[in-house]
Amino acid sequence: MQPGHVWLCGAGPGDAGLLTMQAVSALQQADIVVHDALIGADVLALVRPGAQLHDVGKRGGGSASQEQISQLLIKLARAGKRVLRLKGGDPLMFGRGGEEAGMLTQSSIPYRIIPGISAGIGGLAYAGIPVTHRDVNQAVIFATGHDAATDWAAIAQGAPVIVIYMGLKRIGVIAAALMAAGRDADEPVAVVSNASLPGQKVLESSLGQVAQDLAANPVAPPAIICIGTSKRLDRPNG
Amino acid sequence: MQPGHVWLCGAGPGDAGLLTMQAVSALQQADIVVHDALIGADVLALVRPGAQLHDVGKRGGGSASQEQISQLLIKLARAGKRVLRLKGGDPLMFGRGGEEAGMLTQSSIPYRIIPGISAGIGGLAYAGIPVTHRDVNQAVIFATGHDAATDWAAIAQGAPVIVIYMGLKRIGVIAAALMAAGRDADEPVAVVSNASLPGQKVLESSLGQVAQDLAANPVAPPAIICIGTSKRLDRPNG
Repeated sequence: MQPGHVWLCGAGPGDAGLLTMQAVSALQQADIVVHDALIGADVLALVRPGAQLHDVGKRGGGSASQEQISQLLIKLARAGKRVLRLKGGDPLMFGRGGEEAGMLTQSSIPYRIIPGISAGIGGLAYAGIPVTHRDVNQAVIFATGHDAATDWAAIAQGAPVIVIYMGLKRIGVIAAALMAAGRDADEPVAVVSNASLPGQKVLESSLGQVAQDLAANPVAPPAIICIGTSKRLDRPNG
Repeated sequence: MQPGHVWLCGAGPGDAGLLTMQAVSALQQADIVVHDALIGADVLALVRPGAQLHDVGKRGGGSASQEQISQLLIKLARAGKRVLRLKGGDPLMFGRGGEEAGMLTQSSIPYRIIPGISAGIGGLAYAGIPVTHRDVNQAVIFATGHDAATDWAAIAQGAPVIVIYMGLKRIGVIAAALMAAGRDADEPVAVVSNASLPGQKVLESSLGQVAQDLAANPVAPPAIICIGTSKRLDRPNG
């Protein structure tokens, strides 16, 4: 890791044991770690003594915009820092890492991508949910729930199993759109919050009931929503 | 890691730096590592001295069947070994980990899942291909190419970006099916072989041309095929 470089790094779903060796190495070399609000204390505890931590968490009000984050990375790199941009999950799987990489390229800042375990795969594993199983599905579709432009009718047709990131707020609209496009109200839905962490919770519901069940039993983000029949494992991690 | 337990562990796309801390810890504790042919020497070099390596590689003829592998895991666990079942990528993302977990449960063998970086996300990152980008796609679909029953017409409709695992042999049939279902012959296709490893190669083609291009320039498995427009990164890892 060289001065003036930026590493765009995924921290995985939460459990610090799911950090990659590259991520740990970057944490131990960085001069400054620019991280999301979701990155846990166990992960941040691995930074080298003396390194700076900068929280640019995008949850709720007052957080930095994507443009501000990119400008911060550029400024720090130009000041000769070893900059670790640490994101939950994987930086290129609904992580906006591609946008940050593009801004860095435009500013001629050298960077490197360090992939991370995406919560929609590895986080669900901790809840005993395999995203694929040979007896059940030959395809799985991953979608983000926060964008009003998402084509849920297309997604409904695409694959037996649908995994939704950032879908809590709009789950009522999403579930209705999927059912209008032919998905069955009885299909199982699992909502996994704080996946892989001690506070992990799993709400089991159905496509027709999930919005009401979440209204009655609110769940704090982040959460992954898995829709469709899958072969649950009998003895998940934890 | 306790005697008589099995860890179903993902090794990631290839680069040993993408192993998780849990995977490294398991490599250093296991009595025997039951691994696929695709697991590289850099990864296997991390086993503790004295541990056994057992290659159950499923490439080509003569390799163990899924049933044989599961029976081997059960036999080793019953003999009191610490068993590490090491797979490329993630064990539950087209990795048949769910089947092995089911067999272990039936035999009352305790196990744990260790997620890995899936090649369809992290391997593509090394080729500069983000599986999602806010300007391009709000969904991505992952499918396995080896199964004749896969519904490619549904997949064609599901998402702008399609990532195919184990698709080299049937790419001609798959591309034809996707185009018959409305996908454009001009859509970009990238075939990334040995993703994240020194031997990584990227073949850039189009949906209409990829079968001919692969026939003219054969690629050895494993490879990930990414179909659809994505915002390529200017300076991929490597």
